[in-house]
Amino acid sequence: MAFIYLTRRERFNAAHRMYNPSLSDEENLKVYGKCSNPLWHGHNYELFVTIKGEVNNDIGYLINLSQLSDVIKKTIIDKVDHRNLNLEVDFLHGKIISSENMVIAFWNELAPKIKALGAELHCIKLVETENNFVEYYGE
Amino acid sequence: MAFIYLTRRERFNAAHRMYNPSLSDEENLKVYGKCSNPLWHGHNYELFVTIKGEVNNDIGYLINLSQLSDVIKKTIIDKVDHRNLNLEVDFLHGKIISSENMVIAFWNELAPKIKALGAELHCIKLVETENNFVEYYGE
Amino acid sequence: MAFIYLTRRERFNAAHRMYNPSLSDEENLKVYGKCSNPLWHGHNYELFVTIKGEVNNDIGYLINLSQLSDVIKKTIIDKVDHRNLNLEVDFLHGKIISSENMVIAFWNELAPKIKALGAELHCIKLVETENNFVEYYGE
Amino acid sequence: MAFIYLTRRERFNAAHRMYNPSLSDEENLKVYGKCSNPLWHGHNYELFVTIKGEVNNDIGYLINLSQLSDVIKKTIIDKVDHRNLNLEVDFLHGKIISSENMVIAFWNELAPKIKALGAELHCIKLVETENNFVEYYGE
Amino acid sequence: MAFIYLTRRERFNAAHRMYNPSLSDEENLKVYGKCSNPLWHGHNYELFVTIKGEVNNDIGYLINLSQLSDVIKKTIIDKVDHRNLNLEVDFLHGKIISSENMVIAFWNELAPKIKALGAELHCIKLVETENNFVEYYGE
Amino acid sequence: MAFIYLTRRERFNAAHRMYNPSLSDEENLKVYGKCSNPLWHGHNYELFVTIKGEVNNDIGYLINLSQLSDVIKKTIIDKVDHRNLNLEVDFLHGKIISSENMVIAFWNELAPKIKALGAELHCIKLVETENNFVEYYGE
Repeated sequence: MAFIYLTRRERFNAAHRMYNPSLSDEENLKVYGKCSNPLWHGHNYELFVTIKGEVNNDIGYLINLSQLSDVIKKTIIDKVDHRNLNLEVDFLHGKIISSENMVIAFWNELAPKIKALGAELHCIKLVETENNFVEYYGE
Repeated sequence: MAFIYLTRRERFNAAHRMYNPSLSDEENLKVYGKCSNPLWHGHNYELFVTIKGEVNNDIGYLINLSQLSDVIKKTIIDKVDHRNLNLEVDFLHGKIISSENMVIAFWNELAPKIKALGAELHCIKLVETENNFVEYYGE
Repeated sequence: MAFIYLTRRERFNAAHRMYNPSLSDEENLKVYGKCSNPLWHGHNYELFVTIKGEVNNDIGYLINLSQLSDVIKKTIIDKVDHRNLNLEVDFLHGKIISSENMVIAFWNELAPKIKALGAELHCIKLVETENNFVEYYGE
Repeated sequence: MAFIYLTRRERFNAAHRMYNPSLSDEENLKVYGKCSNPLWHGHNYELFVTIKGEVNNDIGYLINLSQLSDVIKKTIIDKVDHRNLNLEVDFLHGKIISSENMVIAFWNELAPKIKALGAELHCIKLVETENNFVEYYGE
Repeated sequence: MAFIYLTRRERFNAAHRMYNPSLSDEENLKVYGKCSNPLWHGHNYELFVTIKGEVNNDIGYLINLSQLSDVIKKTIIDKVDHRNLNLEVDFLHGKIISSENMVIAFWNELAPKIKALGAELHCIKLVETENNFVEYYGE
Repeated sequence: MAFIYLTRRERFNAAHRMYNPSLSDEENLKVYGKCSNPLWHGHNYELFVTIKGEVNNDIGYLINLSQLSDVIKKTIIDKVDHRNLNLEVDFLHGKIISSENMVIAFWNELAPKIKALGAELHCIKLVETENNFVEYYGE
């Protein structure tokens, strides 16, 4: 038994603002500063999805990378790329759009899809800038 | 006489959309696709400013980097970082917010400030994604 | 009049060997060392295509990036990606497969296609490893 | 007791193809697509070897990096760099040349050599492209 | 309960030499080679600090990044940036200035400060060159 | 006639300080701030050497990369790597050790050696940090 960790990087460009709907705009600006600009700002996000499993000896792969890439694109990228993360993404509705909340939401969307491929979701890593990233391992 | 080219990188995160005000929203979507999303998207922009000049033998520098960085920050970064490029930047008003138009506008703002420092603006390079960038040399 | 330089990066993975057909295998190994391994080696190549032109004021772009990307893919990438550069690429037949000869051949393929898009090819840059790259400006 | 994880990056350029010898060329192409091109393709591979151990207080190092680099070079890099991974590497013979199988094979070669240095192999990470990598922790 | 891992990168430029005070200069040169040059050498260090905790639902963050960055700067960067690591850093006095000893010392300085912020220090990663880095998890 | 530009990257780690010997230590600190720390700081420098010439049709190269790398190493890297740039480098003696003065000095050392290889030195680029670099074209 040999467990392999396979990581695929996908990218998306999106707008967002830090905003807690239970606070006033003034209070949001106090908590979040320029990150709460009501007219939005945005990022080139890098998403690293790591899955875990044993090698399928018929093909030499954990799973085919194009399958993994397709699932990430259909489940996540198509819904967030060139979108407003606060307003246009069903699985983020009502959340504060932080990287922390995004990786948890991405995990919840992706985990069953990865299971259906015969592997296990291991880690979601989201890079917001070259100086900041968050990781979530599902627990 | 020895001309040195000195480059400083600064970064900013902003929202924008591709939008030509003389066209309808429908026509804009036809021309620009998802880049014209009316609810915006955004980028981590990297700005490279290259200046040209002779070494100041008293200090060994073309000019002090912290001076150059300050001028770029005051003239450009403070106005575009965590901003909506279509709506909040005075020197971009009325323009189509493409990287092409941004580097020309940045040049026009920065060139006189660099001259006042005793050097010459040589190139503005703007990296929008890891696959795309534009450069402008002032002519 | 304002000339913009727009650069698009595309990537391809290919096999090749350094080989001069007018020399014996032994002589090739003497000239090229391990780079002439008769059983091939390969690279993740990065191709940077820079075009030059004026901004089209109707769209704010020099040309639409997706058009540029399509032309590079059809003209170059589709023919070299996951290929043997010595054996499978029509426009490289009979050449020594160095980065130097590749950028010249890429230029000759791409220049007329870029002209047909209404712009001018300015530079072909090919990155073979993180330590080595070549550039060609068409003259 | 303080465990340190020390990582060394080495690079190699090699040719390979995805190929299962128990399948026909036609079936291989159906499973692997262009990655099974019978005339090969190649990559700039990045190999990250992480070892684990306690600091040797006489020298302040876990182990001397040049020793670690030498062992990786002799055990792995010298055998795979500028080589055909399907045809020329003894410890890969008979395997499907996927990144998954490569990290397991690299682990089996390296683990005893690292032990002989007084440390423990912790992780083998192999980066095939900027979008794909695999990791193996020996279990 | 969902644990998030949040990483912040900070950078510093410093001089050091590998030097064991219980050995002669000659013996130091034998053990460390050019890394023990008595007139020093230096690096652009990259420091990655990873903290672990649950999302604060009032703000959507694990903790505010600017708070984390401030603590790292005050505790580490202000003391090491543009400094001689052997001579000018109180918490490194008497140690052999290896990356291994630096991450342990950084951990000891930072762990209580991160705890005071309501999170837990998870990993200190120090990148000395593009080919070498060390990590420490506090045990 | 087709001119190719070939670039080789080499790296070195060195200590330096900004220091003008005609000024007092106090005045140096006023001009250069922390960059003038009398106990030194250091960098991971990246040096990009670009040469220009025509392809040698016998080998398909402008010149053999290993020849170019050897010349850069013998002429520059062996003298600056793991060295104190203010005290130990003959061709930098008496100069203010700025990136500007370094690229001019590197040019003067390298230009005749490149000519002896049958090519022409085109550009010396020195990257001091990820945010700052200088270039010199010999005029």
